[in-house]
Amino acid sequence: MESVQGSCLDAIQEMDGLIKELYPICRSITGNGVRQTLQIIQRRIPLSIREVPSGTQVFDWTVPKEWNIRDAFIKNPQGEKVVDFAKSNLHVVSYSTAFRGKLSLQELKQHLFTLPDRPQWIPYRTSYYKETWGFCLSHEQLLRMEDGDYEVVIDASLEDGHLSYGEYYLPGESADEFLLSCHICHPSLCNDNLSGISVMVALATHMSSARPRYSYRFLFVPGTIGSITWLALHESQVSSIKHGIVISGVGDRGAFTYKKSRRGDAEIDRVFSYVLRTAGDNSKIIDFHPYGYDERQFCSPGFNLAVGCVMRTPFGQYPEYHTSADNLEFISLKSLSDSFDKCVSALDILDNNRLYSNQNPKCEPQLGKRGLYQSVGGQTQSRVNEMAALWVLNLSDGMHSLLDIAERSGYSFEAIKSAAGSLVEHQLLKELPVRSE
Amino acid sequence: MESVQGSCLDAIQEMDGLIKELYPICRSITGNGVRQTLQIIQRRIPLSIREVPSGTQVFDWTVPKEWNIRDAFIKNPQGEKVVDFAKSNLHVVSYSTAFRGKLSLQELKQHLFTLPDRPQWIPYRTSYYKETWGFCLSHEQLLRMEDGDYEVVIDASLEDGHLSYGEYYLPGESADEFLLSCHICHPSLCNDNLSGISVMVALATHMSSARPRYSYRFLFVPGTIGSITWLALHESQVSSIKHGIVISGVGDRGAFTYKKSRRGDAEIDRVFSYVLRTAGDNSKIIDFHPYGYDERQFCSPGFNLAVGCVMRTPFGQYPEYHTSADNLEFISLKSLSDSFDKCVSALDILDNNRLYSNQNPKCEPQLGKRGLYQSVGGQTQSRVNEMAALWVLNLSDGMHSLLDIAERSGYSFEAIKSAAGSLVEHQLLKELPVRSE
Amino acid sequence: MESVQGSCLDAIQEMDGLIKELYPICRSITGNGVRQTLQIIQRRIPLSIREVPSGTQVFDWTVPKEWNIRDAFIKNPQGEKVVDFAKSNLHVVSYSTAFRGKLSLQELKQHLFTLPDRPQWIPYRTSYYKETWGFCLSHEQLLRMEDGDYEVVIDASLEDGHLSYGEYYLPGESADEFLLSCHICHPSLCNDNLSGISVMVALATHMSSARPRYSYRFLFVPGTIGSITWLALHESQVSSIKHGIVISGVGDRGAFTYKKSRRGDAEIDRVFSYVLRTAGDNSKIIDFHPYGYDERQFCSPGFNLAVGCVMRTPFGQYPEYHTSADNLEFISLKSLSDSFDKCVSALDILDNNRLYSNQNPKCEPQLGKRGLYQSVGGQTQSRVNEMAALWVLNLSDGMHSLLDIAERSGYSFEAIKSAAGSLVEHQLLKELPVRSE
Repeated sequence: MESVQGSCLDAIQEMDGLIKELYPICRSITGNGVRQTLQIIQRRIPLSIREVPSGTQVFDWTVPKEWNIRDAFIKNPQGEKVVDFAKSNLHVVSYSTAFRGKLSLQELKQHLFTLPDRPQWIPYRTSYYKETWGFCLSHEQLLRMEDGDYEVVIDASLEDGHLSYGEYYLPGESADEFLLSCHICHPSLCNDNLSGISVMVALATHMSSARPRYSYRFLFVPGTIGSITWLALHESQVSSIKHGIVISGVGDRGAFTYKKSRRGDAEIDRVFSYVLRTAGDNSKIIDFHPYGYDERQFCSPGFNLAVGCVMRTPFGQYPEYHTSADNLEFISLKSLSDSFDKCVSALDILDNNRLYSNQNPKCEPQLGKRGLYQSVGGQTQSRVNEMAALWVLNLSDGMHSLLDIAERSGYSFEAIKSAAGSLVEHQLLKELPVRSE
Repeated sequence: MESVQGSCLDAIQEMDGLIKELYPICRSITGNGVRQTLQIIQRRIPLSIREVPSGTQVFDWTVPKEWNIRDAFIKNPQGEKVVDFAKSNLHVVSYSTAFRGKLSLQELKQHLFTLPDRPQWIPYRTSYYKETWGFCLSHEQLLRMEDGDYEVVIDASLEDGHLSYGEYYLPGESADEFLLSCHICHPSLCNDNLSGISVMVALATHMSSARPRYSYRFLFVPGTIGSITWLALHESQVSSIKHGIVISGVGDRGAFTYKKSRRGDAEIDRVFSYVLRTAGDNSKIIDFHPYGYDERQFCSPGFNLAVGCVMRTPFGQYPEYHTSADNLEFISLKSLSDSFDKCVSALDILDNNRLYSNQNPKCEPQLGKRGLYQSVGGQTQSRVNEMAALWVLNLSDGMHSLLDIAERSGYSFEAIKSAAGSLVEHQLLKELPVRSE
Repeated sequence: MESVQGSCLDAIQEMDGLIKELYPICRSITGNGVRQTLQIIQRRIPLSIREVPSGTQVFDWTVPKEWNIRDAFIKNPQGEKVVDFAKSNLHVVSYSTAFRGKLSLQELKQHLFTLPDRPQWIPYRTSYYKETWGFCLSHEQLLRMEDGDYEVVIDASLEDGHLSYGEYYLPGESADEFLLSCHICHPSLCNDNLSGISVMVALATHMSSARPRYSYRFLFVPGTIGSITWLALHESQVSSIKHGIVISGVGDRGAFTYKKSRRGDAEIDRVFSYVLRTAGDNSKIIDFHPYGYDERQFCSPGFNLAVGCVMRTPFGQYPEYHTSADNLEFISLKSLSDSFDKCVSALDILDNNRLYSNQNPKCEPQLGKRGLYQSVGGQTQSRVNEMAALWVLNLSDGMHSLLDIAERSGYSFEAIKSAAGSLVEHQLLKELPVRSE
């Protein structure tokens, strides 16, 4: 892969435009909102859209019925729409069954959800696996509702159909794969799902113009059931996945956070640790824990893939999480751009983290006669390269990758990679096949 | 084993009563005092009393002659008993040979031991492997003795007989054994030997009412020669001992202390580390060292058993050690009770530290359809259990015991054990055979 | 090896005398200065002097032509010698080709090297692998040179000849070798090369009077090309080298410093760590890095020998390095003596770091019947020995060397070695063959 320094303006604009285009759509774990989302992504990258029929058995789970909603509202006794799906798709509990009837306020309240602590925000609720219906509204809306009979309409369908997901496979030199996955199942929530989608599309665009060593697979899937479905349908291919990340909420103003894979010391874990350590900002590394996003499935003990998760503020640790306040204002282009940059750095290092064998392992080779050593004194910069070259030669014994050498020597990965490049040109190093972990 | 929370009043009273009953008896490494002690224990737990003949070769050692003493005193020139065995059995050096004669004070002083720094205390001395005789007395007593001829009588016998020890074997589900051992060879000393005996009897009573996984073996043996004798006579059975503790001075007011086995990372070491860490008091963990109590023998390199040692203040680190001041006032029921509780906690955790295999290891099982997952929101307590269940599922790969999972997750052992129980009920987990170390 | 406490006066005087005798000689990587140096060493220890012909291929390198210099000077327009090799052999760039001609000051300046920051010091420069010529002089000398034509004479030869090195092999009980190496290729520089030579000669003298377990090989070689040549010519013998040190600048007033072998945890690394930790002074341990002295070659990945490097202030970190200020005043007998002492301690420990097997591994042996245990009380010193004996018995399971036991127990290596000696006498321990690493 060719290196790219920093996120270019193009990537930032691309992310910004995509989020704005996707924001109004009502997504859930199935249905036309997901399809529409995938089609919009498809205009940017050559995505394949897959459809898996309801009822398909995927490990311990079953692909659910497809849910589609056309309209929903609550009319007060005066016939005014006091809650209207057309104004915010958060108003309806996701996967609500169709309903049409008149209820007293008392009866209706069994189906209403608000956030008394945040009276202006609409909560986001789902009920995928229990058939029921409900509305979410701001607490202020609720307080304005007076006694009387309310007309309730949910024009939705929950019937056999398909689960939709998107997949983009970018072949590299090797059949070994790097997996990237994000969830696409949330309605008008920005940090939670749109930030991840936009950064992943930007990464896919970026990698398409590189000539990477690994093959890259980008999955756009509904959370939990989507990754389980993909794993169940591709079980035999899973062994090709050598590294991966799940991209979750990466647009809020919190610090960049990397959650390690279940293995804890996988190459992807070491690469992100290196990137964050050398970034010198307030980025954080956290240990694996078995809840969060789809790393739960990729890191289940039967797969135990080397898949970490990138985020900024962990889910549930910011009040806007799963509310209408996770909107376009909540996320920051600076954060998106920083998240993109850090992922690019990690992908760049991992893709270039090669293993070499010193072809002249007994004593040092004579660098001077190859022009790799200053004959007299010399500038500092050149001297650094000599030292980097000595480190690469000394540690290229088939046991130390370039990242190992960078870490042990204290020289930057870039300096070590560059020294290795010169040594390869002079036939002093030979690349070895990648270690399989 | 069924869990017991805290030490019940019964256990405390049992320990207190036993110590008071055993205190007056003159014990040594052999003899009737030991037999009487074992018989008193036998009234509480179904102890088998074993007798090993003098002269039996046990590894590098020989079972010594049996020592019994009936009376001993020193009379001053006025015919008054100035030192009298009847008043304290510490007055005679243990294993003193019989003696009867008249000595000048000068001659007698070769056989007298005092503690000049603690003039009111009688020291405790032994001479097991060198035939001699002597008296221990307070320094104040010595200072009151004037020149003149003293009549000395030691009415003792040292002749072929037996070494006595007691053994209680409590069978469990498995033939794998947990060994508990304490020494029973000290005369009227409370912390040093009676505290350990009483806690061990209470533990034996406690375990008898449980249905433990391991089989438990309780040894009441004279120090050093007793454990060596037991090991020599049961060499072929030793491989069944998977875990163990030696219980020494556990009644003084110092902090609870666990001395690790020679292995240092045995399961018993990890369990006590966990118990003491979560106790949040000033308990201490110390490394193995090859002196102390019978862990010296169990942890000799030819056995290297996973046997630690529990104590409070380490021997020799309190001035009352091996003096008449290690008496009934010196020990505290609170300390005995705390020592008992911590041992119960450790035994409980170790006995329940099972290993499971996730029966649905690829992706998470659908907890919701089994009623193991809240369908909407939910209470905090239940949520903790869900998280504990996710941890158990994620780490039950045959490599992580429940204690491993508790430590990695930060959830309590109790919460993890309880989650595992639910998952077993739902056929999501299956127990694996215990790892042999 | 018999222990020696502290450096005796003899060793100090020997080092002092040798440095003074070697100081005036003009050494380089080949030539008569090296030969003369080796002959002077040969008067002290039975050195074999080897000659390897120019043009010999040694791995990636070729033994260079031999360089000899007879005279060199620069005369000013007035015919006065303003730079004169006879006054300091640093004045000529080492390996300068012969030259004779008249140059303007402008032309001449291309060939002059000074240290403007240290105007009174003459720098030391070499040009081994690029044929050129040059003079080094103090900056003050340069400033005094006025415009005009200068007569330049370098009466030197660079022609086929030999590379000379010295080797002293001291056979021990075992064919396993301990290698010591120092460089001998610098002209009148004291810390850089003469300090190492003198300490190594003193160590050779010291070891000759011991009866060591290992065989000791002392190499006096020109830097880089010398060690490469030796390794190339003795490739098949290299596997006998089990431990080693390179001795570099060990006479300056800085703290003693040990640079670990590339392995980082070799026995020699652990021994020096132990010696420096117990020394309680400001000694330092630094990690391996692939530049420095001939450890670069011994630790190249194709050999990866357990060879560390001893020094005081690392090269390049003191301003006198590679200048005329690295003279007789720069080094201190106290530092030389301390360097010698620490090496003796390390050699002593490593040579005695044996591995034993407890012949009575099941339970403790009865030390009392062998007189190894106090029957009553006892003095502190004797008690320490009992404890040391218990540690040796407990850990002599074929896995723990005496150094391991000293480190784990906290007792001194000397105490542990002495206890092991007593136990061997009583047939309680048996020596095992050394572990090969």
